[in-house]
Amino acid sequence: MKNYQLIISYRGSAYHGWQIQPNALCIQDVIQQGIFKLTGEKVHLIASGRTDAGVHALKQSAHFFTKTSIPAERMPYALNTKLPEDIRILQCRQRPETFHSRYSAIGKTYLYKIVESKIGDPFFYDLTYRIAYSLNWQQIEKAAQAFIGTHDFSGFMATGSSIKTTVRTIEAIRFSHQGSHHEISFKGNGFLYNMVRIMVGTLLKVSQYNLGADDLKKIILSKDRRQAGLTVPAHGLYLKEVLYPQDKTFS
Amino acid sequence: MKNYQLIISYRGSAYHGWQIQPNALCIQDVIQQGIFKLTGEKVHLIASGRTDAGVHALKQSAHFFTKTSIPAERMPYALNTKLPEDIRILQCRQRPETFHSRYSAIGKTYLYKIVESKIGDPFFYDLTYRIAYSLNWQQIEKAAQAFIGTHDFSGFMATGSSIKTTVRTIEAIRFSHQGSHHEISFKGNGFLYNMVRIMVGTLLKVSQYNLGADDLKKIILSKDRRQAGLTVPAHGLYLKEVLYPQDKTFS
Repeated sequence: MKNYQLIISYRGSAYHGWQIQPNALCIQDVIQQGIFKLTGEKVHLIASGRTDAGVHALKQSAHFFTKTSIPAERMPYALNTKLPEDIRILQCRQRPETFHSRYSAIGKTYLYKIVESKIGDPFFYDLTYRIAYSLNWQQIEKAAQAFIGTHDFSGFMATGSSIKTTVRTIEAIRFSHQGSHHEISFKGNGFLYNMVRIMVGTLLKVSQYNLGADDLKKIILSKDRRQAGLTVPAHGLYLKEVLYPQDKTFS
Repeated sequence: MKNYQLIISYRGSAYHGWQIQPNALCIQDVIQQGIFKLTGEKVHLIASGRTDAGVHALKQSAHFFTKTSIPAERMPYALNTKLPEDIRILQCRQRPETFHSRYSAIGKTYLYKIVESKIGDPFFYDLTYRIAYSLNWQQIEKAAQAFIGTHDFSGFMATGSSIKTTVRTIEAIRFSHQGSHHEISFKGNGFLYNMVRIMVGTLLKVSQYNLGADDLKKIILSKDRRQAGLTVPAHGLYLKEVLYPQDKTFS
């Protein structure tokens, strides 16, 4: 058996997230069906983590075990012919048997896209979170530095998650601005459920109430979900990249 | 009765084009229903021209007669609440009674978007025409100049169109390139049915067969649909703007 890792990009708009659910179209299921059509194998495709309904991926990582004779480098072209156009296999690599998309991962980058617009744009409504007012980006960028480092992020987690530890390390937060379009990227060793969306919601609160890095530090230390901001919508969120020790580049 | 002109942007992916057809979701119908929900009026919304299924618009222009008390400048905000997010009213202006979206128009700009990619991109598949090979853009840009001016474009028209004259004037063709993403804009006093899509198809033929401006001139003069290139897909096409004599800017 060969262990094939896929790098996958998808527009999440039409799907009920990554994971298979009864009576709902999920990305995992669509790709597994594509692999079945291609190889006749019923594989179990394991991702670096689930993405929720509406969340997009630029480079999701997933692996499966296969007896196929199709070489890894031909896999993207072969498998893409069996997939809808809102899911694309960008790359396939053969990995050691021990490689695991989720447990081998040492970091991830998420991107959150925001557009400031009173009217909206038909080409971005499901790809970017629209805010009808102007944000104070200077204030946001300054305060956001409080997230950097190792913290107990239990205030930045959807209730009902069961998890061993709520301590995570945020290595970098980067901003990019193009007119009314804004992107925030979060690079970290791991993220709790809904963590990025709550962090972004808290940055909106920073802008709204003129908060600084010190206020944000207090919110983190409070470990109180109610102190943090609202969970911003799924459709602004992109899983940008998953990092493994053997890979060199990571942004 | 007031004559209201709407400037409308839409992502055409989910619709069977502008015009009302039996048993098909059309943009005209969706907006007319929105106006009905807002004002209680059953209006007839007339556009500058139809767009086909899958074709997008950055600034379509349409007008309707209304007794509403809603001022033109409030109309976009009010009407957008009754519309799906892939259709947005960008602007509304009260026009003289004699203004007609189609007959008053003196020109239009169309945009055609092409991406060169072997694999494809989930975020662009319905917004850009994907070509799996590289095009010779230098060759294309040089040859395209043959389209400029006043010509009988009867070779660049879908068969079965009934129309008074097939003579049209192309004022400008502009190219923009960003990595593998390319845009061609066509500005003219009017366009025959499928004319832009056939012009683009012919530019692909130019690249494929190394043709020059002289070859393209011969193709135009032949008035033979079979000499021109294939009709490229609808989903790369954008109605960019409609020009009226009273408006100042036009790109």
